[in-house]
Amino acid sequence: MLNQLDLNTLSKNDQIDHFLVIRKIELRTTRAGKDFLSTELGDKTASLNASIWEGFTEIAARGKIGDVVKVTGTIEEYQGNLQIRVASIKLARPSDNVSPRDFLPESKRNLDEMKKEFDQKIKSITNKSLAKLLKQIFSGETYEKFCNAPAGKSWHHAYIHGLLEHTLEIIKICELMCEFHPELNRDLLISGAMLHDIGKIEELSFDSAFEYTDKGKLIGHIVIAYNMVSDETNKIQGFALELKNNLLHLILSHQGKLEHASPVVPKTAEAIALYQADELSAKVNAYKNAIDSEVRTDSNWTRYIPLADTDLHKYDIGNSSENEPNKTLFE
Amino acid sequence: MLNQLDLNTLSKNDQIDHFLVIRKIELRTTRAGKDFLSTELGDKTASLNASIWEGFTEIAARGKIGDVVKVTGTIEEYQGNLQIRVASIKLARPSDNVSPRDFLPESKRNLDEMKKEFDQKIKSITNKSLAKLLKQIFSGETYEKFCNAPAGKSWHHAYIHGLLEHTLEIIKICELMCEFHPELNRDLLISGAMLHDIGKIEELSFDSAFEYTDKGKLIGHIVIAYNMVSDETNKIQGFALELKNNLLHLILSHQGKLEHASPVVPKTAEAIALYQADELSAKVNAYKNAIDSEVRTDSNWTRYIPLADTDLHKYDIGNSSENEPNKTLFE
Amino acid sequence: MLNQLDLNTLSKNDQIDHFLVIRKIELRTTRAGKDFLSTELGDKTASLNASIWEGFTEIAARGKIGDVVKVTGTIEEYQGNLQIRVASIKLARPSDNVSPRDFLPESKRNLDEMKKEFDQKIKSITNKSLAKLLKQIFSGETYEKFCNAPAGKSWHHAYIHGLLEHTLEIIKICELMCEFHPELNRDLLISGAMLHDIGKIEELSFDSAFEYTDKGKLIGHIVIAYNMVSDETNKIQGFALELKNNLLHLILSHQGKLEHASPVVPKTAEAIALYQADELSAKVNAYKNAIDSEVRTDSNWTRYIPLADTDLHKYDIGNSSENEPNKTLFE
Amino acid sequence: MLNQLDLNTLSKNDQIDHFLVIRKIELRTTRAGKDFLSTELGDKTASLNASIWEGFTEIAARGKIGDVVKVTGTIEEYQGNLQIRVASIKLARPSDNVSPRDFLPESKRNLDEMKKEFDQKIKSITNKSLAKLLKQIFSGETYEKFCNAPAGKSWHHAYIHGLLEHTLEIIKICELMCEFHPELNRDLLISGAMLHDIGKIEELSFDSAFEYTDKGKLIGHIVIAYNMVSDETNKIQGFALELKNNLLHLILSHQGKLEHASPVVPKTAEAIALYQADELSAKVNAYKNAIDSEVRTDSNWTRYIPLADTDLHKYDIGNSSENEPNKTLFE
Amino acid sequence: MLNQLDLNTLSKNDQIDHFLVIRKIELRTTRAGKDFLSTELGDKTASLNASIWEGFTEIAARGKIGDVVKVTGTIEEYQGNLQIRVASIKLARPSDNVSPRDFLPESKRNLDEMKKEFDQKIKSITNKSLAKLLKQIFSGETYEKFCNAPAGKSWHHAYIHGLLEHTLEIIKICELMCEFHPELNRDLLISGAMLHDIGKIEELSFDSAFEYTDKGKLIGHIVIAYNMVSDETNKIQGFALELKNNLLHLILSHQGKLEHASPVVPKTAEAIALYQADELSAKVNAYKNAIDSEVRTDSNWTRYIPLADTDLHKYDIGNSSENEPNKTLFE
Amino acid sequence: MLNQLDLNTLSKNDQIDHFLVIRKIELRTTRAGKDFLSTELGDKTASLNASIWEGFTEIAARGKIGDVVKVTGTIEEYQGNLQIRVASIKLARPSDNVSPRDFLPESKRNLDEMKKEFDQKIKSITNKSLAKLLKQIFSGETYEKFCNAPAGKSWHHAYIHGLLEHTLEIIKICELMCEFHPELNRDLLISGAMLHDIGKIEELSFDSAFEYTDKGKLIGHIVIAYNMVSDETNKIQGFALELKNNLLHLILSHQGKLEHASPVVPKTAEAIALYQADELSAKVNAYKNAIDSEVRTDSNWTRYIPLADTDLHKYDIGNSSENEPNKTLFE
Repeated sequence: MLNQLDLNTLSKNDQIDHFLVIRKIELRTTRAGKDFLSTELGDKTASLNASIWEGFTEIAARGKIGDVVKVTGTIEEYQGNLQIRVASIKLARPSDNVSPRDFLPESKRNLDEMKKEFDQKIKSITNKSLAKLLKQIFSGETYEKFCNAPAGKSWHHAYIHGLLEHTLEIIKICELMCEFHPELNRDLLISGAMLHDIGKIEELSFDSAFEYTDKGKLIGHIVIAYNMVSDETNKIQGFALELKNNLLHLILSHQGKLEHASPVVPKTAEAIALYQADELSAKVNAYKNAIDSEVRTDSNWTRYIPLADTDLHKYDIGNSSENEPNKTLFE
Repeated sequence: MLNQLDLNTLSKNDQIDHFLVIRKIELRTTRAGKDFLSTELGDKTASLNASIWEGFTEIAARGKIGDVVKVTGTIEEYQGNLQIRVASIKLARPSDNVSPRDFLPESKRNLDEMKKEFDQKIKSITNKSLAKLLKQIFSGETYEKFCNAPAGKSWHHAYIHGLLEHTLEIIKICELMCEFHPELNRDLLISGAMLHDIGKIEELSFDSAFEYTDKGKLIGHIVIAYNMVSDETNKIQGFALELKNNLLHLILSHQGKLEHASPVVPKTAEAIALYQADELSAKVNAYKNAIDSEVRTDSNWTRYIPLADTDLHKYDIGNSSENEPNKTLFE
Repeated sequence: MLNQLDLNTLSKNDQIDHFLVIRKIELRTTRAGKDFLSTELGDKTASLNASIWEGFTEIAARGKIGDVVKVTGTIEEYQGNLQIRVASIKLARPSDNVSPRDFLPESKRNLDEMKKEFDQKIKSITNKSLAKLLKQIFSGETYEKFCNAPAGKSWHHAYIHGLLEHTLEIIKICELMCEFHPELNRDLLISGAMLHDIGKIEELSFDSAFEYTDKGKLIGHIVIAYNMVSDETNKIQGFALELKNNLLHLILSHQGKLEHASPVVPKTAEAIALYQADELSAKVNAYKNAIDSEVRTDSNWTRYIPLADTDLHKYDIGNSSENEPNKTLFE
Repeated sequence: MLNQLDLNTLSKNDQIDHFLVIRKIELRTTRAGKDFLSTELGDKTASLNASIWEGFTEIAARGKIGDVVKVTGTIEEYQGNLQIRVASIKLARPSDNVSPRDFLPESKRNLDEMKKEFDQKIKSITNKSLAKLLKQIFSGETYEKFCNAPAGKSWHHAYIHGLLEHTLEIIKICELMCEFHPELNRDLLISGAMLHDIGKIEELSFDSAFEYTDKGKLIGHIVIAYNMVSDETNKIQGFALELKNNLLHLILSHQGKLEHASPVVPKTAEAIALYQADELSAKVNAYKNAIDSEVRTDSNWTRYIPLADTDLHKYDIGNSSENEPNKTLFE
Repeated sequence: MLNQLDLNTLSKNDQIDHFLVIRKIELRTTRAGKDFLSTELGDKTASLNASIWEGFTEIAARGKIGDVVKVTGTIEEYQGNLQIRVASIKLARPSDNVSPRDFLPESKRNLDEMKKEFDQKIKSITNKSLAKLLKQIFSGETYEKFCNAPAGKSWHHAYIHGLLEHTLEIIKICELMCEFHPELNRDLLISGAMLHDIGKIEELSFDSAFEYTDKGKLIGHIVIAYNMVSDETNKIQGFALELKNNLLHLILSHQGKLEHASPVVPKTAEAIALYQADELSAKVNAYKNAIDSEVRTDSNWTRYIPLADTDLHKYDIGNSSENEPNKTLFE
Repeated sequence: MLNQLDLNTLSKNDQIDHFLVIRKIELRTTRAGKDFLSTELGDKTASLNASIWEGFTEIAARGKIGDVVKVTGTIEEYQGNLQIRVASIKLARPSDNVSPRDFLPESKRNLDEMKKEFDQKIKSITNKSLAKLLKQIFSGETYEKFCNAPAGKSWHHAYIHGLLEHTLEIIKICELMCEFHPELNRDLLISGAMLHDIGKIEELSFDSAFEYTDKGKLIGHIVIAYNMVSDETNKIQGFALELKNNLLHLILSHQGKLEHASPVVPKTAEAIALYQADELSAKVNAYKNAIDSEVRTDSNWTRYIPLADTDLHKYDIGNSSENEPNKTLFE
């Protein structure tokens, strides 16, 4: 655990004496022939720009994205944005005992609480084949990775433990749908919800940054998950073929449309429920985070967000009514 | 209330002495020169084909879709489908005291229970402007129509009280999203959920059949709802402009995409939550009903369903495993 | 009225002693540590780049887009483009008696002449309900805004009085269609043409720059217009419901396709005429302006124009034939 | 000229003693083993169904679509539609002196008047190269075909002289655009308007019915027109290359989008004007005709029209207001 | 082997005494109350319509699609199409020793020759891991199924041995591409070509008719193939991970686009080669067969073919030139 | 022929004394007020960046894209990319006897060998009309241009002789398809393959750089080719009309889809074969070149390639297996 203030708690003129991770780094030469280093440095709460004009020989030669550096300097403001005026910068040493992992963004939810919830959901599965399958998969190293992985590279739940948080949301949404529709097979649907994104633990690397792996790009998390689950069912005696095909269909179809990379579209009531629950959890998380990180103090609108194909609006409750007793929005 | 067995409880060789509604009617001449009447007759639970070869003079001359007829005859089976062999048929008389409304499909949920739930949701709104708005709109004739209307012509929740049932589902889904995301403005989102489809009470007629009205076709339920809510907010003193615009934005954007007839796309966190909650409620209901009404005994697959762009599968739990302790699917 | 030469009449080496409006402004630091101000300055006829190296303390601190500045300097040429070499720059004072409005681009057509034409068109409506409606709406502050508003932010008729100019064009095109097709209801169609874009007076702000308002982004000009016209018809006794629905349908469907943000597609002969007339007026204006402002002296082609999805060509008549007696193109 | 009443003037129980053209013909056998002939017979004003039960040996053996027959019988009504009860039918003899051409639908505009208008438009072209080109092309057999051809197989201006009528409309629309925009090259644009659809005289056959030719299907009217005009310009000395390319570009791009079979999109101001003028003329004509031929007495809506992707509405002015002094719509 | 003339060699008035398979069957009642059986009967070379008016009690009760029947009767012509006038019909008995398999369409290429070619292609693979993998997969029951399977249900190579024929074509096309581009990894590409459609042996059933299996609909042949190959590589020691991922990528991406159900798009040179080779082999086969089976004697055009989104043309060489020394087209 | 080492053979610290062509040139002023020239210089094998700080007066004033310059200096490495440190630079003089053509990229295949192959393919055509047509077209200046032209501006076969190389590939692919399908008309298909892209010799200029001509942009190579071939067939007596239309159809439809600028879609078996063969040749060439020029030493992935809509992967055989006996990929 790092003994330093989070970046997002600092203000103009605050002093920096921090370990930070390199998010972007580029050596540039000014047209006057002077070299400088243009960087973006961050911790798990924020990222700030920093241009370094002196004493960057070591960093320029050996520093790369994902490396941890020790930085001293000052927070300054430049055209409405905070940035770091660097006094000194050097690569972290082994003896510093810091890891890039400590700088990745993390879910705001408590991990142990989420794991406890998840374990209870597994126990709620009454079908013996499915229960066995879930216990086999959600164990050992796979379970550990599942609990740590982000649910995406940058769009939604793109933080450590994000996959677990996202999966729990979908489980609860699906349970609500089972209340509305007792005809839905709860065991099948909840098992599918738990397993649908398990392939992301191999599609993404999340040790020092969130990046697609070669396997992730060539195969994709949907087929990776298919293979993991298919192989595991083969180890379970008496796993009904129809049940297996329906479970695998949930995994394959959970992105809902061929053009979203699902090789089959949802063809069962459970499959359409899982797809729509996934959309709901993902989109609301993504929009909330985009609004949170993009809205500036001088506007209630974000820049244009490509994945939403629009700019987004923050409902500024304070301006619109003097006596709103409600929760505040994004404050 | 009709004192007769529901059609969906009858089997081959059962006798018919029923009031039924005309769903389709066409006078045909055989190529041998003989006239006959090809019809589809139903009650609120099912529809059956019936070709009538004798004694249809009155019906042929004056019967039209939506009219109630008194039919005697027998249930027979023809190539795997049940149909009615008509012995006699005549138009219902005023003295029969039956109405086409009695033959429209209805929600399986209890109306009073749904209204009670809905009223409690209104009471949960703490913002005074919104609370006032909801009370004004959900009252009198508008509220009555809202409680009776279907949520669609044929695809999802296409039955009497369907709009209320659908709205309640969306409210609950949105409440769950508010649990996940305290940043969401609950009052705004739940109010938007309640009002988003209110325009359907004018877009559709649902007295004797579910049809689009002229206004429905020329204006559409989204803009109708916009106008209803906008007019009503104008009657409330101090209704904050920013709140009004955000609420109206929820209504306008709730179909999520321009090509789905929303004139604006969702631009707030509440708007994306409402859109995705609507999709979830609508699609699962639609798929469940399509599977329910289309799957035959000799296949686990429906015909091709145009709105799903695929055929749909019924997970036949009985065949796949001897000891499934779960709920049955669509049985 | 400003007593200074229009920017588009100046050439290389001409002296500048002008009030200009700030179109873009960005404070930059050279890599050698020197600050400078990168700006775009313009009047209603043109915009030029200007980098300012000295004496910009006041502007950098308080100047923002839309502000008027007093500039002295020289026009110079840089790689084929004219730009301003700034000698001095300061913010305009109240005593200078200049307004950002004086710097917005304006229609080349005479305003009074356009208003006169428009009034005659209103008088040509013989249906009493429609005539009354038009007189009510095109009066007072609404009429004033309508006469000043641009028809768009940047694509077509994007200048002061542009909405009025665009509306007049559509009226005349629709009148021609009524000559071809006496079956068209002229009163309905011309009224629809007059009202179709009235919502733009609230969708856009056009005091110091052309920007979308919050209401414009959340609601959009189509639904704003719908509401304005619907409310106004309610004040007219005996306004036939069928007529109202058809008129409102013209407004809602005038962008022709759902994906262009019309919530309904054109379903009447008048609606398709209005949509296509709108397209014709808008596209020709947009292409003409794009060609006019983009074609350089060394090429008959513009850069790639995203909204046209192509580069555009200027037919250079002088090169192609010695004795063309025709009008010149874009000269 | 046929000495018989037009079909669209006849009513129930009127006697038929007419030459008519076969529009559809199919020999069917009843399931009782009886043969009958199912046909659609028409003149230039309408088409009616007719099933023939006796005396059709000759027709069945030798009659085909486009042939003229002599029919006696009675108009009868069947489920709201008029049809012909045939008493006798036989193929027309040469001595009858009738031609299938006499039964094709025709423009309601006077041919001589249209030709006179068109000739004046040619004379208005002042560019010598273009004037010469137009005189060469619009002469002899080509001009005769141009004056007779329909502008389409079934969608818009799908009647004899339709191409000329359509072309005149576009010319007038383009002239109006030249009034708005003096920068447009009038000679170029009007010449392009005249020539843009000339390829239809080879794409379609219109002697006995409107059908695509082999060349029409394999090459298409756009490229056919390109070739005709390109070849003709080569015969004119001093035809400027830039002018030729711009004129040909108008022809190639006049359908506006690649997916509408234009091999290039409009890249000049004249090209976008021609495309949008074509759309305006075509769509209004098509919608008007679809409404005219599809709306029944018991509804103000047509069936679903695939090319419009909607059903269409007839504004029924009589119902909506007692005192409309306007032109009637489609009556 | 059936001792009877192929259907496609018979002409009008020929006698039938054949075993045929039922392709369609429907019991209908005439409007005069008479039952008859509407069927389509075929062998591996053709299918003909046959309506049966007498003696069909057994067939109507027990016959279904895919069953073999013994039929006597005569070939007759009806409106340009041949059909069967049935004298007698009965279900085949076990003692008849006929199987539905004998009636499925078959590749015109010799099976043994194709297998020999295929084996030689396997032997040409020099990479040891890939060679071992191919030998393992193309053996035993899997190889037998692979040699028998069609490549599709109805569009291309939709006949017994069609998958083998299609695979051989793709191999040869890919070999040609390797000649053009020595940079392509031949072993990888040819192995991918061999394996890309192997999943079709489980996606389709082809014993008595070509139908999708439940697994085929829920999982799809792409993922089935992925799983087969992935499992098999796991049995091979030292199978390089990078090679495995690249091979599996070929399988997953071979339909080229997400909307064609590939969960990843081609990302390597080999992958794009395989996709385009597959398209080439499939489309030419499909168009050729569609032209072959659809063109009638009175036209050089087929009906509209949905999968080609056009009607297709047969180049009738005989009509176009007296002295063409070339191969004839589709004769 | 230039007597200098190819750029792609040079390494860090190598001396430059080369004629090179200007690919990009931009005069910039540093923020410290110092001018410098930012350029990209290349020969036919590569392009390198070069910023020039001194002695560029002449180049800055008169140099433009496509000009040849004489450069001395050193190769240096900057952040993993090689660039040129310029010591001196001046425009080439006429006496230097160098031409921009010498710097355009060229096919790696031998021109004479390709021409010999092509001539043999022409001789293989047995249809007299087609043989005559091909001999007429592939002669003189047209043939010379055809042999020199690139097949595209930048995507595939974008180098001198690329059109000939691409055409030969398609011919061979089509010959293979004729082996699979004897029903295809070989003469027609091979002639179509030879002629399909002939219009590119007028669509593109390729003297000093690859650019679209005005005619290329306004007409496009498909219609240019149509016109060339159509005109030429008119000179051949007895050229059968059906053959001509089918040949022209191959040219017009060879881009396969309307949205790819073909004015008709493929409607014959030969047309679909040509389209798919073109796709295969083009895509594999394009992907190979994109991988070749984009993959860096530190990654097996290219940047995102817009025309492929993905990043591309280089299968790095060396890393994946110690004993691959195969050809190397892109090395």
